[in-house]
Amino acid sequence: MASKFYAIVIGAGTGTGTAAARRFAQAYPVVLMARSRASYQDAVDGINASGGTAVGVDADAADPASLKAAFARVRDELLPGHRLAAAVYNVGANFKRAPFLEAKVEDFDSSVAGNARGLFLFAQQTIPLLLESANAASPPHPPTLLITGATASMRGAANCAGFAAGMTARRALGQSLAREFGPRGVHVAHAVIDGVIDIPRTKGYNVNEGVEGGKLDPDAIAESYWHLHTQPRSAFTQELDLRPYVEKF
Amino acid sequence: MASKFYAIVIGAGTGTGTAAARRFAQAYPVVLMARSRASYQDAVDGINASGGTAVGVDADAADPASLKAAFARVRDELLPGHRLAAAVYNVGANFKRAPFLEAKVEDFDSSVAGNARGLFLFAQQTIPLLLESANAASPPHPPTLLITGATASMRGAANCAGFAAGMTARRALGQSLAREFGPRGVHVAHAVIDGVIDIPRTKGYNVNEGVEGGKLDPDAIAESYWHLHTQPRSAFTQELDLRPYVEKF
Amino acid sequence: MASKFYAIVIGAGTGTGTAAARRFAQAYPVVLMARSRASYQDAVDGINASGGTAVGVDADAADPASLKAAFARVRDELLPGHRLAAAVYNVGANFKRAPFLEAKVEDFDSSVAGNARGLFLFAQQTIPLLLESANAASPPHPPTLLITGATASMRGAANCAGFAAGMTARRALGQSLAREFGPRGVHVAHAVIDGVIDIPRTKGYNVNEGVEGGKLDPDAIAESYWHLHTQPRSAFTQELDLRPYVEKF
Amino acid sequence: MASKFYAIVIGAGTGTGTAAARRFAQAYPVVLMARSRASYQDAVDGINASGGTAVGVDADAADPASLKAAFARVRDELLPGHRLAAAVYNVGANFKRAPFLEAKVEDFDSSVAGNARGLFLFAQQTIPLLLESANAASPPHPPTLLITGATASMRGAANCAGFAAGMTARRALGQSLAREFGPRGVHVAHAVIDGVIDIPRTKGYNVNEGVEGGKLDPDAIAESYWHLHTQPRSAFTQELDLRPYVEKF
Repeated sequence: MASKFYAIVIGAGTGTGTAAARRFAQAYPVVLMARSRASYQDAVDGINASGGTAVGVDADAADPASLKAAFARVRDELLPGHRLAAAVYNVGANFKRAPFLEAKVEDFDSSVAGNARGLFLFAQQTIPLLLESANAASPPHPPTLLITGATASMRGAANCAGFAAGMTARRALGQSLAREFGPRGVHVAHAVIDGVIDIPRTKGYNVNEGVEGGKLDPDAIAESYWHLHTQPRSAFTQELDLRPYVEKF
Repeated sequence: MASKFYAIVIGAGTGTGTAAARRFAQAYPVVLMARSRASYQDAVDGINASGGTAVGVDADAADPASLKAAFARVRDELLPGHRLAAAVYNVGANFKRAPFLEAKVEDFDSSVAGNARGLFLFAQQTIPLLLESANAASPPHPPTLLITGATASMRGAANCAGFAAGMTARRALGQSLAREFGPRGVHVAHAVIDGVIDIPRTKGYNVNEGVEGGKLDPDAIAESYWHLHTQPRSAFTQELDLRPYVEKF
Repeated sequence: MASKFYAIVIGAGTGTGTAAARRFAQAYPVVLMARSRASYQDAVDGINASGGTAVGVDADAADPASLKAAFARVRDELLPGHRLAAAVYNVGANFKRAPFLEAKVEDFDSSVAGNARGLFLFAQQTIPLLLESANAASPPHPPTLLITGATASMRGAANCAGFAAGMTARRALGQSLAREFGPRGVHVAHAVIDGVIDIPRTKGYNVNEGVEGGKLDPDAIAESYWHLHTQPRSAFTQELDLRPYVEKF
Repeated sequence: MASKFYAIVIGAGTGTGTAAARRFAQAYPVVLMARSRASYQDAVDGINASGGTAVGVDADAADPASLKAAFARVRDELLPGHRLAAAVYNVGANFKRAPFLEAKVEDFDSSVAGNARGLFLFAQQTIPLLLESANAASPPHPPTLLITGATASMRGAANCAGFAAGMTARRALGQSLAREFGPRGVHVAHAVIDGVIDIPRTKGYNVNEGVEGGKLDPDAIAESYWHLHTQPRSAFTQELDLRPYVEKF
């Protein structure tokens, strides 16, 4: 009997997280993780209502105990006997611009916690599961860990020190994991989201406002995540950028 | 009446070029260009035999007159009334390792000619056509210029000065074009092919030899090219890398 | 009367830190900071014995209270009335290679603490002092914050996830600070030390062993730090690499 | 008897070239090369008038025969018996912004010729001489090839395709040479000049105009070139950037 596979998205309550969950739900049952039910429940209901299978689990990526408990619940209660096909790390510790001398070390700490430490912990939970899947009889696609990045993953900008610190650390973690686990069949890829994502919260943002397609459609991001997941192991992408056509870069 | 669209691949006689032509032929008539009929005829015949539509045209990318004549033939004789949906620059000036003091300036010249100057000329032919398509009623996907790159597009290695010079120049051309024509609706993307491509000519290469998936499957590359082409303009990728899972990087 | 200027090196107990202190002591009184007196005392004594002026102060860069107390001591007791000419962040949270699945989150935490959070805190202490110096009548050279980086500042490698996370974050902090405070006259520069440093502790390292000049001479690093400090504001370097001539890169 | 050493600057007629020649003339006789005497004669006279030793030679870097003749003249007539200590490639093929569709392939060709092909040829002349010096009894500093780069060496910008192609190729050549000849004792370094140079020709440029230090002082660039030359082989820099403190980057 063929193995049953599933996908996990953590940071599932955002535009990109929800879209990724919806996209992967076309192929797998999906687990949506976020710190609170309020973040994921609508998306879970939406997927289930449109013929997919979704469950939500409370989890704080930066808290080892919380994360461990969440994965145990998935394994023991929610999707017993399933194997992990894909995991998406989409936690975003809130971006905050501030002059450096007004920034608090707590801003630095929370950026690192959500943007990098959480990925470290999430990878320690998911990599063993992805390795198991890689060794399983017939995973539909190479098991994949996908990481959402940002412009700040590439360099530090003025008034943005803490955020860039967390995001560059996150990217470096992804590179380390790709180099260590790629040869063992696990695909680790990082997407540099360079622009404003088109979600209700960003309606007011004065960036490419009023230009059709001037903000990133989360479903388009999710489609590229799905493509990354389907790449055969002879041609893995480690990193791609995604930005609106009108974005300066 | 809806416009009719087509795709062009130059450097069509290689593994990647042929695979890209086959992939795009699932959606469009394709034009295969190479310096000699011997390079493209089998691929043209194969596509036509399997239900696609393909034509071949002799063209030397680095020679303005040759290229101009080839595009005129496409426009006037082969696919009159069609619009350009996608163009793939896949010309590869032969990679040759040599100690720098034994290299000839002719090696430098031929690398630049095929790897960069040809792209400059090809873009001057195709960008106006892609802009027209972007402004046409309903292109199926944003008009796209795809550029095949290599490890040497990213940096210069020892014994590889001329090749890296041509390939980094090629990448820079792609970045310039993306920044200039992205905002006008033309998608310009560069793929860094980091590894040996699995084609008859590389059978003897002692790189990941005997490892299944240790060389890049050209069809997998082509599938990522197709994905790039289908990205909506709210989420364009300018660059991605592609490498076998076992490749060191 | 001309202002009196001084320099601070934190992480002063290592090869690079000691060498930087010695070099800057040719021009300024220097403060050597490290977590324990044992780390800096010999260097302090050496500088004082050879005609320079040095003081040592216990400080833990990753601990805000410790750092704040150390800077208060410098200001109030050790060098009252002096202005800060240059600050060197040379704290190195110990590099440890380990397979990712054997790594502890504590390794990640300690890398981030020493390699990045400490810089955040050190910069919050030193940037205000450097801005004051920039506005002072006549600083001998543009006030400078120098940051010691490593190969892992540039990318994540296999078995090296936590270290690379901390070091890339450190580099990003430096870039953010350079972009924010450069225009206000403070020079922030990052040196990528790519190779093994030639100190007693690395004698056994099997890297370029026995090759003269195959490891980085700390005094040579210090000389480049001094050069960075002396650059006029019309030509600031933000980043340079330093490696032994035989190092592969 | 100790060897006598000299330095060469090609592209000697510009702000940076002249300043480099003056700086190296404090230590060595210098040869200034440019396409015409008008470009270098004032600088040659200035150096000789202030106690240095300078000679000028007509040479077109992109023309193999011209370059070969120039080096033969230096060896046989001008500085017989001398060894090469440092060579500076400072040729700048004129930067020209133009919409890509209005650019001519001749612009691409002339950028590549001056910015990259010339370096290829210059390196084929100078590397053998620098290797000889590296093996000589006691070169004062590791023999050095210095390459002037620009912002466009790092990436392609809109309206700047040809220039970026030539400059990225130039940088890649430098990287290849550094990796091949560093281990043999020749130091190859590339300086990314990111900003407008403060020379009479740029007086009108509306970039940081009126800001003191807002343009790069050529003498400051030259001082960093001299520092690169003096680095011992245990700590070579391959690349540094140089920009005015107020420059956005």
